Amino acid sequence: MTTTTHETEITADERVPTIEIVREFDAEPDRVFRAHVDPELYRRWVGPHSLTTRIIKWDARTGGEWAFANDRDGEEIASFYGSFHEVRPDERIVWTFTYEGAPDGVSLETLTFERLDGGRTRLRGLSLVEDFETRDGILASGMDTGVREGYEKLDQLLATGAQR
Amino acid sequence: MTTTTHETEITADERVPTIEIVREFDAEPDRVFRAHVDPELYRRWVGPHSLTTRIIKWDARTGGEWAFANDRDGEEIASFYGSFHEVRPDERIVWTFTYEGAPDGVSLETLTFERLDGGRTRLRGLSLVEDFETRDGILASGMDTGVREGYEKLDQLLATGAQR
Repeated sequence: MTTTTHETEITADERVPTIEIVREFDAEPDRVFRAHVDPELYRRWVGPHSLTTRIIKWDARTGGEWAFANDRDGEEIASFYGSFHEVRPDERIVWTFTYEGAPDGVSLETLTFERLDGGRTRLRGLSLVEDFETRDGILASGMDTGVREGYEKLDQLLATGAQR
Repeated sequence: MTTTTHETEITADERVPTIEIVREFDAEPDRVFRAHVDPELYRRWVGPHSLTTRIIKWDARTGGEWAFANDRDGEEIASFYGSFHEVRPDERIVWTFTYEGAPDGVSLETLTFERLDGGRTRLRGLSLVEDFETRDGILASGMDTGVREGYEKLDQLLATGAQR
């Protein structure tokens, strides 16, 4: 099996405290979307290679809530929670996101699934926080490794067709 | 009955696309907080004098969802929905907010209830959106009238002690 790995573009806006992440996938929008809302699929690809993800709550509908934890060698090292503000099938997910280690921090994340030629999808994620210090702290935390490695796992998941 | 009306400060930040609203109330934080999470109290004060509020969904807990509509003379003129990202009793509410007339717009709102001397509360609301155009459009919409008039109604509600 060969899997094409696309580049992940991570951009910090100069004017607003956002992080934009753009990535293409060799699968139709409905399959990339499903890999974000099905908790069994999501836990298989999200995050860096060094960690596993354990879903705690997952109600992927407009108005639903979610929570997951990251484990290393069976020990929890971080947990996260939030709400699904909007789940618009195959098009858009808007959710809130808090790392429990920084309980006053909240980001608002909008994912859009754009159909491209050839059965491909462009996924755009925009994370918005309330100040530049918080945004720059997230960028400096090494989150880019988790994002890139997670999307490599998602490429593989989509290539196997396991989710059809 | 006399009710003191405090000034409502509404500030647009120059650096980030936020609107900050600061207002004092002559009541303890737990009572001001309760007027935000109890749907029967909330509908009685929120919004301008010209409209009434009808609660559609209201699950004021971390991870819950909400929706309400505004009516004029019995006709619905606007509706809104979102999620309670966090409800921290007597201290903080973080929620998302979408006006159904602009379904791709989302704001992330953080309310903090700060205890002041003399049984008073300073309420701070910070609304964050993803760009300055959206923020300035909200400011230009006349939202300030609804905020000021709503808080006048909240002053009266708190003064009557109806919610004790």
